[in-house]
Amino acid sequence: MTFTAAILVTGSEILMGRTTDTNSSFLARALDDHGVRVVRTLAVDDGEEAIVNGLRSLLALGVDLVITSGGLGPTHDDRTFAAVAAVVGHPLTLDREAFGVIDGIVAAFAAARGLDPAQFAAGNRKQATLPWGAAVLRPVGTAPGAIVAHGSSSIVVLPGPPVELTRMWADASRHPLLATILAAGAQPRRLVRIYGVPESRVGDVFAELGGDRAGTETTICASRSEVEVVIRHGHADGGAATSLVDGLRAAFGSAVFSEGPAPLEEIVLDALRTHGWTIATAESCTAGLVAARLADVPGCSDVLVGGVVAYANGVKEGLLGVSAGLIEREGAVSASCAEAMAIGVRDRLGADVGVSVTGIAGPDGGSDAKPVGLVYLHVVTPTGSRGIERRFHGPRENVRSWSVTAALHLVRLLARPE
Amino acid sequence: MTFTAAILVTGSEILMGRTTDTNSSFLARALDDHGVRVVRTLAVDDGEEAIVNGLRSLLALGVDLVITSGGLGPTHDDRTFAAVAAVVGHPLTLDREAFGVIDGIVAAFAAARGLDPAQFAAGNRKQATLPWGAAVLRPVGTAPGAIVAHGSSSIVVLPGPPVELTRMWADASRHPLLATILAAGAQPRRLVRIYGVPESRVGDVFAELGGDRAGTETTICASRSEVEVVIRHGHADGGAATSLVDGLRAAFGSAVFSEGPAPLEEIVLDALRTHGWTIATAESCTAGLVAARLADVPGCSDVLVGGVVAYANGVKEGLLGVSAGLIEREGAVSASCAEAMAIGVRDRLGADVGVSVTGIAGPDGGSDAKPVGLVYLHVVTPTGSRGIERRFHGPRENVRSWSVTAALHLVRLLARPE
Repeated sequence: MTFTAAILVTGSEILMGRTTDTNSSFLARALDDHGVRVVRTLAVDDGEEAIVNGLRSLLALGVDLVITSGGLGPTHDDRTFAAVAAVVGHPLTLDREAFGVIDGIVAAFAAARGLDPAQFAAGNRKQATLPWGAAVLRPVGTAPGAIVAHGSSSIVVLPGPPVELTRMWADASRHPLLATILAAGAQPRRLVRIYGVPESRVGDVFAELGGDRAGTETTICASRSEVEVVIRHGHADGGAATSLVDGLRAAFGSAVFSEGPAPLEEIVLDALRTHGWTIATAESCTAGLVAARLADVPGCSDVLVGGVVAYANGVKEGLLGVSAGLIEREGAVSASCAEAMAIGVRDRLGADVGVSVTGIAGPDGGSDAKPVGLVYLHVVTPTGSRGIERRFHGPRENVRSWSVTAALHLVRLLARPE
Repeated sequence: MTFTAAILVTGSEILMGRTTDTNSSFLARALDDHGVRVVRTLAVDDGEEAIVNGLRSLLALGVDLVITSGGLGPTHDDRTFAAVAAVVGHPLTLDREAFGVIDGIVAAFAAARGLDPAQFAAGNRKQATLPWGAAVLRPVGTAPGAIVAHGSSSIVVLPGPPVELTRMWADASRHPLLATILAAGAQPRRLVRIYGVPESRVGDVFAELGGDRAGTETTICASRSEVEVVIRHGHADGGAATSLVDGLRAAFGSAVFSEGPAPLEEIVLDALRTHGWTIATAESCTAGLVAARLADVPGCSDVLVGGVVAYANGVKEGLLGVSAGLIEREGAVSASCAEAMAIGVRDRLGADVGVSVTGIAGPDGGSDAKPVGLVYLHVVTPTGSRGIERRFHGPRENVRSWSVTAALHLVRLLARPE
């Protein structure tokens, strides 16, 4: 059976556009990973009436889970527990155990800063005051969460700060009330991630392969630079899923870059590790984004040596050894310059692999011969060297982020296991 | 009077957590800037029934505007216009003018790729088929949008890709149906942006200043590293707003870093420009993010020379001239190393200003003496030099992003006009 869920995000900073809500997509993905179908996400302001109405409208959909985010702080405008209590018809009561935990956390915080802990007492009490009968989730910051049963639904109340929410979710998902739903909903699935092919082409090939077999259910999703094919299948239908995966692999070859969930930068680092190779970056228009993305991965320091942001031509010459004549002749945005940058950074930083990006991110600086969006990338490894030219569209941030992804994929291609 | 709005985002990729919805926060901010209060944002999947129910639930709130995003593509699972037609009770009809525009765009696209334009005809017709009576918004990509009146509300239908949505919004907001609302709602306001002070402290000072005067309405919003105070005021109440702004300025001094909407990186570049200074970056744990953020700003190349990502100690020594002895003695994460990195990058890249970051982003690599989150930053300019030590909390990405912001603010402080 398929369980369903809805997500309720509270906070006027979201409705005023001060904050982009990332909690919804985190929760949606976590639920989808367990086969739970999210049917709505809703954001309301932090008034109690708005939260009550929001909760009621989501519960009226008959979902198994409503997950809320935000409104658990110590001040009067944090009203989620009050709203939940009103909806389920239970009184708010002080949870002495939760109060003790919060008090301990806050006392340590106050002591470290030489503050009087007494001034936090009211806030602590407020944060520990929950709907009667709630299962309390231990605070990550100072706010406990809760799981509250309501008819055949469960309301999971989580804090708003993304760091607190993601950690508390890990706890909540192990709670018996949730674990049952998440385990029952979990369905075997296969993942195929493809780079450099339009979503429509993947759809066409999927149809040519005969589409879904008995027992498989496939979704094809495009993000900006990747097409992700998810094939859910029955426990006895692994063979049918495998035949689809094999078909996609045969059709798309090295454009299939992963069959797992790891982010691209991690895949690239792992590919380099299999060779024992280190890497250095030379970036013009991306200005550090390629290096920064590799450094998103904890423990990258055995592979990432460093890099040079060569925005000015003088830096390309001085730090990367690109000849002034080459830049004069071919321009800083050219295949030869990209090659010289990759060779230069590999050499100067003593890395095994050098990767470079030089291009015109726009909106200005383009010409007929070298329009905005034109980007040259180059990778040099101990066993090979390859440069590519790309023409990206859209605004500056798109050109730069697509360039970063293209650079990482070029490294991946040249670092494939033999 | 205050106009109200609600936002409806469609797309199963959002409910599956594959994409973080940024359209809502863009629209919410744009509306808030014009004094329009957003009361709900809702995401539903791309089924017609879900969109119809979503639209009805939002219209039932009595809002003046419902803005939708997504579901305007050429395929059968793009159903927003069908849903809007069902809700307003108008038939879907082909808009010949819109069809002509789309046909022209697609023909050019097909010609450039040697494709037969006939294969796109059905998709073009579908995209030009709108609820009867709709005001058509010209396509940015190939999908036109629309404004559809319904009772006293207007439904504004925009495409899903963020690049198309933001550009079409600029058009839509000039349409008479919207311009009236946006102009009527617009209210004078003052902005005070503060760095390095907790939101609660800003709230306390605001209360000490006497809080809102007659004719002012103030909101205090914290994002991760900034507190933004927005003081809306009546057309005749500019003096009251000014006295609040003056009070905040007096209380917070140089922590007030802006009274306008420009992003921090733009403020920093402008501050450097007033001196005619260029800048170079030396980054360890942030690994290029400081340089990349400066390069987010178009036309930064008169100020940003480049930088060095010195992840490995060998790069700190070889490219930045940090002495091996210093690293041996004090460690790569130390005030002296940060200072040597800033001096080194300024010198080697021939910039006027050098800024450096070195720290322990975690989750591993910390010790009792140098815990995860410990970061040293240093800035050297032609007229001064300053280093700071910070201890950030939370996961790797927080430590890194807070470090970037701290580095930019340190540059700003040392580049303040005399």
